Amino acid sequence: MLNKIKRDIPRHIDSYGDAKPYAGPFATKPEGIRMSPKIVASKPLDDKMVANIREALEKAEVRDGMTISFHHHLRNGDYILNSVLDELAAMDIKDITIFASSLTNAHEPLIEHIKSGVVTGLNTSGLRGAIGRAQAEENILGKPVVFRTHGGRARAIESGEVKIDIAIIGAPACDEMGNMNGMEGKSAFGAMGYPIVDAQYADKVIAITDNLMPFPLNRISIPMTLVDYVVVVDSIGDPTKIATGATRVTKNPTDLLIAENAAKVLIASGYVKEGFAFQAGSGGPSLAVCKFLREYMIENKITGSFAAGGVTSYLVKLLEEGLFKALLDTQTFDADAVDSMKRNPNHIEMSAAMYANPHNKSCTAHQLDIMVLSATEIDENFNINSLTGSTGMIMGALGGAPDTAAGAKLTVVVAPTMRKRIPIVVEEVTNVVTPGDTVDVLVTERGICVNPARKDLIEKLKTAGIENMDIKALREKVERFTGKPERVEYTDEIVGVIEYRDGTVTDVIYKTKK
Amino acid sequence: MLNKIKRDIPRHIDSYGDAKPYAGPFATKPEGIRMSPKIVASKPLDDKMVANIREALEKAEVRDGMTISFHHHLRNGDYILNSVLDELAAMDIKDITIFASSLTNAHEPLIEHIKSGVVTGLNTSGLRGAIGRAQAEENILGKPVVFRTHGGRARAIESGEVKIDIAIIGAPACDEMGNMNGMEGKSAFGAMGYPIVDAQYADKVIAITDNLMPFPLNRISIPMTLVDYVVVVDSIGDPTKIATGATRVTKNPTDLLIAENAAKVLIASGYVKEGFAFQAGSGGPSLAVCKFLREYMIENKITGSFAAGGVTSYLVKLLEEGLFKALLDTQTFDADAVDSMKRNPNHIEMSAAMYANPHNKSCTAHQLDIMVLSATEIDENFNINSLTGSTGMIMGALGGAPDTAAGAKLTVVVAPTMRKRIPIVVEEVTNVVTPGDTVDVLVTERGICVNPARKDLIEKLKTAGIENMDIKALREKVERFTGKPERVEYTDEIVGVIEYRDGTVTDVIYKTKK
Repeated sequence: MLNKIKRDIPRHIDSYGDAKPYAGPFATKPEGIRMSPKIVASKPLDDKMVANIREALEKAEVRDGMTISFHHHLRNGDYILNSVLDELAAMDIKDITIFASSLTNAHEPLIEHIKSGVVTGLNTSGLRGAIGRAQAEENILGKPVVFRTHGGRARAIESGEVKIDIAIIGAPACDEMGNMNGMEGKSAFGAMGYPIVDAQYADKVIAITDNLMPFPLNRISIPMTLVDYVVVVDSIGDPTKIATGATRVTKNPTDLLIAENAAKVLIASGYVKEGFAFQAGSGGPSLAVCKFLREYMIENKITGSFAAGGVTSYLVKLLEEGLFKALLDTQTFDADAVDSMKRNPNHIEMSAAMYANPHNKSCTAHQLDIMVLSATEIDENFNINSLTGSTGMIMGALGGAPDTAAGAKLTVVVAPTMRKRIPIVVEEVTNVVTPGDTVDVLVTERGICVNPARKDLIEKLKTAGIENMDIKALREKVERFTGKPERVEYTDEIVGVIEYRDGTVTDVIYKTKK
Repeated sequence: MLNKIKRDIPRHIDSYGDAKPYAGPFATKPEGIRMSPKIVASKPLDDKMVANIREALEKAEVRDGMTISFHHHLRNGDYILNSVLDELAAMDIKDITIFASSLTNAHEPLIEHIKSGVVTGLNTSGLRGAIGRAQAEENILGKPVVFRTHGGRARAIESGEVKIDIAIIGAPACDEMGNMNGMEGKSAFGAMGYPIVDAQYADKVIAITDNLMPFPLNRISIPMTLVDYVVVVDSIGDPTKIATGATRVTKNPTDLLIAENAAKVLIASGYVKEGFAFQAGSGGPSLAVCKFLREYMIENKITGSFAAGGVTSYLVKLLEEGLFKALLDTQTFDADAVDSMKRNPNHIEMSAAMYANPHNKSCTAHQLDIMVLSATEIDENFNINSLTGSTGMIMGALGGAPDTAAGAKLTVVVAPTMRKRIPIVVEEVTNVVTPGDTVDVLVTERGICVNPARKDLIEKLKTAGIENMDIKALREKVERFTGKPERVEYTDEIVGVIEYRDGTVTDVIYKTKK
């Protein structure tokens, strides 16, 4: 069946279940009641400290077929997921579903655990490198990876669509009863946005720390009321590998041009005004937009209310200059930002549910005025792809893009028209991650295209003397340089399901033909 | 049937249900899964601001027969409960069950709402003054009040035993999306321990504030994800009426003597040592114990880990002197303590669930080494009464006493042997609030009695040269002064059910005979 953005979604997907088609950003209403974990009891003298990961898993009664959650705040520096999987393999545990907030290149040992049957299910926001390739080309999992947005992951947990049997939480600071935060210690990574949700709904929660602090920890992101076991290890990861260049403002002249144009669009839109709320993705021209925005805000004495999202040192700078009154942070991207969260009360930690779950009573994404996104592809219907390449490879992530695009009053995509002779602006994206009905403007180095649905914006840009280019015309112009891109050939095996934040299906990914 | 402390509990109590008899502090295990509220959704541009309490109640679809929760952090200065009940009466709503964390003299207008049928059910930790008298003597409610401990209330919510339809939360600081804290603003009362739990499990949550702050509030005790409506009123209460003399160290010579003796017991017990955790009730000799403890700690260079409970300025002083590393606070008792919570990261807010719910993975009460309690009566089995008088009047509260007595390694009761010729040490307490099997020592001005079950303590006191008096002998000695107390006569109508923290029944209160 075709969903609202005209992607053909099977009614039933093996190993996934019945697929609900995407029907528009707020069309699908939630039903029922929230997930509930089992009620347990505590006693005086309860001892949560266990000798090692093995003992924690044993005490948590790990069994074949369980779902185990992980979080990726340490990104490329994460040691936890691999350690736990090695232990599960040593215990001869099979058929585990990994429910990760995301997976990075650091997690490539996962391939061996998939091949040996330890891991048979993957839920994640992103997949890259060798794992992404192995799934896209070979379907090593033998069933689709379920891709969720950051808000959608929180929703899946809270709604009970996914039941976490054991939550594994890497804790830069933890006391012996399991009170945790992400801000203190040698492996500090900042906000604990993802596992704050996991801990509330998982049956068993294991904290793994390399910094056991005296009880009671004073900054508590996850309280002891939710934690079963505490394990001390030498190191939970290398925080210097969290940022991978993503947090520097680009010096690429094309990106700078795009960013400058995007800033002009933001200003012309009228949304850059006293008290506005802002988010920009990290990397590429996105972050550079902040630079131009900053200059305009200073010049015009505009103070925003908050900036949100994954928080970089650049956003910290804007906070400290008084250009934004607060940062709302679910995942912190560098050491400066970690330090800011620790000392600045206006740098506020939030759970992934508070960030972007559409199915509770508020989320930060819905409070945004402006969202600036990157894309690996964008098509004539403004659909965005940030997960797969034009070759069909799985090489990116959903992140919070679909969440914030739906929430923000103005969603602007910044992207070059081509990368290495591969067109970014295409007739139809390889896969849809962020539906075009939540995207308002595309800004490239060769032109600016407003979604025809936003007549108000077209008017505003016209008034400001900014030319609005037809996106089809832009695509054709680009193809004159790149040639018409070859469509990749697929088998009929589904290797990935892309869920919208509300649990409907935006798209499916097929296995590529050799 | 007789429960473990030999109180006769009916198997079924009308308007309450089947009663599970108290079976020992950790004997009754929880079953099932946690309570779940309905899943709802939010959208951009959602507006939670409503014009007044009436509109909030209407939008929350208040109906006859609902359960509405309140919290008593503003104690005698609370304006919220009366305002909401007046509005419900004006809306001609009937048959409401009030699920309050506690009720104070400020809530006496409740009597009229009970008489008119607006309110037909009461759940609370305490009941005093005219309401307590009217219930004890007249059963104005026509059914029993359910009394719960602070931990037991959190448990009843989390387990789903009580379903909150609408939670009413008085918020000293709140933003327009409902992020709240109790620390900022003219009505600041400090920790929001009780409603933190209510908000998580109620179907509808109404925040009432007299201090609307810009979004996003930076200190968030209750997040917007849980809040439906925000109402701004002129004043939520008078915070100067929170403390009612309870937080000053006594100058009464008897109380000081008791406190000094109690401190000797604590020291002799061996529990006052590096890293120990401590709680004392407010009022009477309890707080004075801190004074003597403080001197000993300074002299012997002992630093405790944390002090907990309702937090007074005296505990703040101990924190600031470095005698305790942290305070864990669920309810704050005076302006100095509110100020401390605002500025001192080691003054930590906790929910009532984290404080004392026995049915989650940890609670602070179970981490205590020492608990010092007051009592209105204590009997030969060390059972404590802090709720009813010897006249059968309802005039006190359960508070956190049963929670902390069960949790602490050493529970010491400090009480004079008599008050105004009424004996405190009695053969059998009028009602049991804290079971004697969780109480270790009674310290009075006329002698110290150790629970015979604590042979280890008897030995330690002996070594320290502290005389251990048989509690029966003490009772007899007291009766030589006071005479044998007259037993109050009761009807067979049950006007109160005293629940233990685990949901079993410790005792029932009968209506007094005229």
